[in-house]
Amino acid sequence: MHFTSQSLTDGFVERDFVLGDIPGILWTPENPDGPTPLILLGQPGGLDRMRPRLAARARSSAGFACATIELPGSGGRPRLADVDRARRDLWDAAEDGRPVGEIVERLIPPLVDAAVPEWQAVLDALLDLPNIDGPVGLSGGVMAVAVRLALVDPRIVAATLFAGSYVPAATFDEARRLTIPLHVLLQWDDAGNDRQMALDLFDAFGSAEKGLHANMGGHTGVPEYEGESALRFFQRHLS
Amino acid sequence: MHFTSQSLTDGFVERDFVLGDIPGILWTPENPDGPTPLILLGQPGGLDRMRPRLAARARSSAGFACATIELPGSGGRPRLADVDRARRDLWDAAEDGRPVGEIVERLIPPLVDAAVPEWQAVLDALLDLPNIDGPVGLSGGVMAVAVRLALVDPRIVAATLFAGSYVPAATFDEARRLTIPLHVLLQWDDAGNDRQMALDLFDAFGSAEKGLHANMGGHTGVPEYEGESALRFFQRHLS
Repeated sequence: MHFTSQSLTDGFVERDFVLGDIPGILWTPENPDGPTPLILLGQPGGLDRMRPRLAARARSSAGFACATIELPGSGGRPRLADVDRARRDLWDAAEDGRPVGEIVERLIPPLVDAAVPEWQAVLDALLDLPNIDGPVGLSGGVMAVAVRLALVDPRIVAATLFAGSYVPAATFDEARRLTIPLHVLLQWDDAGNDRQMALDLFDAFGSAEKGLHANMGGHTGVPEYEGESALRFFQRHLS
Repeated sequence: MHFTSQSLTDGFVERDFVLGDIPGILWTPENPDGPTPLILLGQPGGLDRMRPRLAARARSSAGFACATIELPGSGGRPRLADVDRARRDLWDAAEDGRPVGEIVERLIPPLVDAAVPEWQAVLDALLDLPNIDGPVGLSGGVMAVAVRLALVDPRIVAATLFAGSYVPAATFDEARRLTIPLHVLLQWDDAGNDRQMALDLFDAFGSAEKGLHANMGGHTGVPEYEGESALRFFQRHLS
């Protein structure tokens, strides 16, 4: 893991890094009291575009270190031709109001298979750094990536998830086997989201502790107080 | 409004009162900084049995006065023969797994018609007391009573509601016309609750700000942290 830049904002050190060809960002408290637990911040791909929102999420996570990485095939990373083709097909189908199920099966599973081992390699490197320690939380990003990562990596002990429509069948099977505490956000009036699928997925999770917070405000209108609510969830499970 | 007893616990004064033949309980901070906003605590009927839980809800509502009243026909109040008969029919039907819709229509609307004017008369009297002031919040109780009361009384500016199955058709119509901020709790794995009806009712509410918190733990297993979450909701809207 090589750090390529460093800046300081609001008491958080923001460092860009690369691990092999995986770029990422790490936020750590400027003056930690000791080793801080870590939250992995998922994102939909396109780290440069997402940086301001991710930085805000990290800086509102007082007491935690946060890290994110670019998705395979996104941002400045080498394109994945099949994934790009499926993504274009998805946009076209969604625009035309055609069913997207078959396209989701072409788009998401290859992304999951590529992204999860990268997250695990980055997690190995992050936990080797001074002042970062487990337990590890996982926050959002592509639902299918988050579910697989939470399922296969026992270092992840709690996760907040954002309900989204593009969930392949395999994710439902994996959700049933997931048992860590979950905190799921759903925008009830997100016209581009399949609400029933989100509720079915919430129902499928095997976790004894799972909470669903549904709000109004459309796709991007998650109320600000939900950030505090997610932070309290991680404080309960990581502190 | 006549006070019939008074005690002090954990910085809250608990006073029993009667208004006409309506018994109730009022909790106020021992040493308020000034007039405190008021939260009306709904309950399913049977004030003596419910007192410990209601007192705990009141004492965890720092900064607010809280009040509750007995439902018509419940506790030590004169029985309502038709309501009692419908309640027995409901228990029998629920036990046998028979549909309850017709019985709910006999049980709940008369209760709503009787309870809501009583709540409003008590609210008049409460707001005449020194150190209690609007705005007023409403917390739980029988869903149909809460929806009607919130709809007809403009002094109520925000409500937390507990999803329950026994919702007559009229409540759905009233829910569509309700526009105050709402915070709805649903026990996802409550076997005795009709989850789909609860989700349909949440969808029906006309409020631009409405939040649904669904949790595991069965009928009585609402997580403790939901109490704090409801308090923060009232702090946002009543403070």
